[in-house]
Amino acid sequence: MTKIAICGACGKMGRFIYDVISERDDCTVSAGIDKFGEAYADFPVVKEPADLPEKPDVIIDFSHPSALDGLLSYCLSNGTALVIATTGYTEEDTAKIHKASEQIPVFFTFNMTLGINLLANLAKTAAKVLGVQYDIEIIEKHHNQKIDAPSGTAIMLADAINEELDNKYHYVYDRHSVRAKREKTEIGMHSVRGGTIVGEHEIIFAGRDEVISLKHEAHSKQVFAVGAVNAGVFLCGKPAGLYAMSDLLASL
Amino acid sequence: MTKIAICGACGKMGRFIYDVISERDDCTVSAGIDKFGEAYADFPVVKEPADLPEKPDVIIDFSHPSALDGLLSYCLSNGTALVIATTGYTEEDTAKIHKASEQIPVFFTFNMTLGINLLANLAKTAAKVLGVQYDIEIIEKHHNQKIDAPSGTAIMLADAINEELDNKYHYVYDRHSVRAKREKTEIGMHSVRGGTIVGEHEIIFAGRDEVISLKHEAHSKQVFAVGAVNAGVFLCGKPAGLYAMSDLLASL
Amino acid sequence: MTKIAICGACGKMGRFIYDVISERDDCTVSAGIDKFGEAYADFPVVKEPADLPEKPDVIIDFSHPSALDGLLSYCLSNGTALVIATTGYTEEDTAKIHKASEQIPVFFTFNMTLGINLLANLAKTAAKVLGVQYDIEIIEKHHNQKIDAPSGTAIMLADAINEELDNKYHYVYDRHSVRAKREKTEIGMHSVRGGTIVGEHEIIFAGRDEVISLKHEAHSKQVFAVGAVNAGVFLCGKPAGLYAMSDLLASL
Amino acid sequence: MTKIAICGACGKMGRFIYDVISERDDCTVSAGIDKFGEAYADFPVVKEPADLPEKPDVIIDFSHPSALDGLLSYCLSNGTALVIATTGYTEEDTAKIHKASEQIPVFFTFNMTLGINLLANLAKTAAKVLGVQYDIEIIEKHHNQKIDAPSGTAIMLADAINEELDNKYHYVYDRHSVRAKREKTEIGMHSVRGGTIVGEHEIIFAGRDEVISLKHEAHSKQVFAVGAVNAGVFLCGKPAGLYAMSDLLASL
Repeated sequence: MTKIAICGACGKMGRFIYDVISERDDCTVSAGIDKFGEAYADFPVVKEPADLPEKPDVIIDFSHPSALDGLLSYCLSNGTALVIATTGYTEEDTAKIHKASEQIPVFFTFNMTLGINLLANLAKTAAKVLGVQYDIEIIEKHHNQKIDAPSGTAIMLADAINEELDNKYHYVYDRHSVRAKREKTEIGMHSVRGGTIVGEHEIIFAGRDEVISLKHEAHSKQVFAVGAVNAGVFLCGKPAGLYAMSDLLASL
Repeated sequence: MTKIAICGACGKMGRFIYDVISERDDCTVSAGIDKFGEAYADFPVVKEPADLPEKPDVIIDFSHPSALDGLLSYCLSNGTALVIATTGYTEEDTAKIHKASEQIPVFFTFNMTLGINLLANLAKTAAKVLGVQYDIEIIEKHHNQKIDAPSGTAIMLADAINEELDNKYHYVYDRHSVRAKREKTEIGMHSVRGGTIVGEHEIIFAGRDEVISLKHEAHSKQVFAVGAVNAGVFLCGKPAGLYAMSDLLASL
Repeated sequence: MTKIAICGACGKMGRFIYDVISERDDCTVSAGIDKFGEAYADFPVVKEPADLPEKPDVIIDFSHPSALDGLLSYCLSNGTALVIATTGYTEEDTAKIHKASEQIPVFFTFNMTLGINLLANLAKTAAKVLGVQYDIEIIEKHHNQKIDAPSGTAIMLADAINEELDNKYHYVYDRHSVRAKREKTEIGMHSVRGGTIVGEHEIIFAGRDEVISLKHEAHSKQVFAVGAVNAGVFLCGKPAGLYAMSDLLASL
Repeated sequence: MTKIAICGACGKMGRFIYDVISERDDCTVSAGIDKFGEAYADFPVVKEPADLPEKPDVIIDFSHPSALDGLLSYCLSNGTALVIATTGYTEEDTAKIHKASEQIPVFFTFNMTLGINLLANLAKTAAKVLGVQYDIEIIEKHHNQKIDAPSGTAIMLADAINEELDNKYHYVYDRHSVRAKREKTEIGMHSVRGGTIVGEHEIIFAGRDEVISLKHEAHSKQVFAVGAVNAGVFLCGKPAGLYAMSDLLASL
């Protein structure tokens, strides 16, 4: 039974993590850490990692980059495993995370969803098999409040495919301004924005009279909580090191 | 039984038209017109409209803009109905077509597919009902040899929707270069290119926790032949005038 | 500014309705009615309609069939418009609702989603235009806890299409046990069940080298709240009568 | 440069194979074999394998089971590689094919499409990673003249997934007659029939707020020709043995 402390326990994602853990048999919430919130379930909520009444097996952090120093300090002192699901770190922060992973197990990944990481793996296999005979296009869909395009995940998927294909491909975002046939080494990137769509990523391989498409749809932000809890249970008992979702996938 | 002459009878589309007519009970091919081809079935093929052995009820033209003058001249002299499925006319040509339609029934439409014209109609209804609360995006997919983007049909669909919404919308082809939320009066246009995809058009209305999508897929160029034959049978017996697929739709 | 009372104000759907109204400029919550809940926002919550401190313009009911008598009694006495979004009524209940609608405006519909009602309308138009040349299939997807199949909404969509086609069609749920070609007057019904899918309905019209598909996806139960509030604002000021989502659609 | 003889050269599939080879640089058609046809391009067409003017590297057979004996006899005598893309063999035929593969390289596979075989591989990976937490459903779509349901390919896909999951799953074809929640070890199978759809197979993995779907669309029967030619080039120079598309995939 993995004992998990949730950092950012009272935020939206923290509560999702609590929900996910509640439904599992192999882990439990031992405590919450939240600067601004209060206890809302059968576990204590403290302000700082240092105040934790009991040593957890792993801390899952879904809070804010400013919490990083306190977390790393606690985990390094106590040998606690750390799942980092927060985003928006500086390069300096990232360096600290890498350094800490020399002493403790740290899970740090671009996207906490099992499904998206699986999608990246499947797309790499498909790209390798299908090769240059099949044209590759990526369509991603998100809500109308998202300000960046394409999504970070779409770029990651394209990069994963491109790496598999010797980085010979370039990305094309707009075909409207040119009158020319598609080049073989293009990856077309399309960013659909509308309504409250949580997140959809589709990779299309179009060949001669044949289309293969691989799609992932996230229907709520809870999927990130599911991924983070899977990561926490996976991380428990591992040796020091930097782990990503691809390691979790490889272990299945 | 509508007697149809096919202009461009020996080309790819002409042969599709023959195939389509062969399977129907309400029309028959009386003759073909083709500068370069020869008879390949149970009807004569002549070089020019003027050589037609028998007056058809309607001529379906799927040949080349250069055939226009001969066709109009014949149809005006004989009161023959004319379905124009050829594309690439100049403005002068178009003016001639409009003028001819004052004396004979002429079917002249941007897209010969019943399905695409139905799609435009449905999209207009949806746009009117859903209004500005739903974000509109269009994704079109075509083969990797197509040089224009977006497709003419995608623009036509966007225009039809925009007209229904008082022309308040503008079209956005690339979101990658800007960091900003989507405006309500955008129509996002996405041109996927790959393999041998014949043609796919999808219109997405994305609202609060709700997405409505209307899609048309053409799996071969034969669908244009089916539309042209429908137009020919529809046109037969009509008074002089300019007819489009929307008139055929309205008659159903 | 339409004053709305929410019956079932403290339930999940009641809170969604409050959220939806909060974001609109043309309506406001004047009170809640809930046997079991307490005030959670800037409006009073009473136990019974009779306790309402102020006469609302319209009551939206998303509670339980047992609340019907109290609601009808209040609305008939006060000439209050009533939106009924609760389901599970007996035939006797339905008769009472119909009778009340002779004196007050009542909105009573099979599905509160604007989108699904629009989908039914579009499908009827498509069926009429495309006719028997196109094969019709319906695919619906719902979560793995749903016990009925096909969904009530899928049946409603099939019925709407069938009615448009002179009720010549029959529904086919399983093709696995027979070895025979599809009949023209079949509507294939497919019930996909998996995960937590909220609700997806797709109608496919497949013809010669051409497929038209119309799809609705609900991503949360909030869409029903949006529909109910639209109905409430629509109903306000209408003469006595029984109204459905099709009336609201027709008014747009 | 692989020299290929096409058995069934004058049939529809034989001509597709010729088209595919014409566009490649690494292989050429040395001869055709066809009982009923005549030469239509720059290679001779003979009635029987024994009449072949020149020994090819490989024979691709897309003809009829009755041609099997002549083919095996020729290939065994000459050490010629053989790609068998014909279907409808008896068990006795299959035994002969297996026996021949002890002496010559034989390519014999359930589906000649690279894409479908890739899809099966990806689905197995996904099933292994996602496990029992994700519900699996398969939707296949074919034209309205197909008499069997589900398609052989859909069953093959389900079997591949099931094997990966320790054969704990069973297949469900109809949910309409029961009122019960979905079991975890179901694979739902849905056979959509309509129009002229060549073939579409989609595998859905639906989890908590997350759906992954893998889809293959064939837009013409030419894709089978592409697969057969790939198989022919692959087979050339291989040692005796029975090869399937999975071997070709593994070699990429």
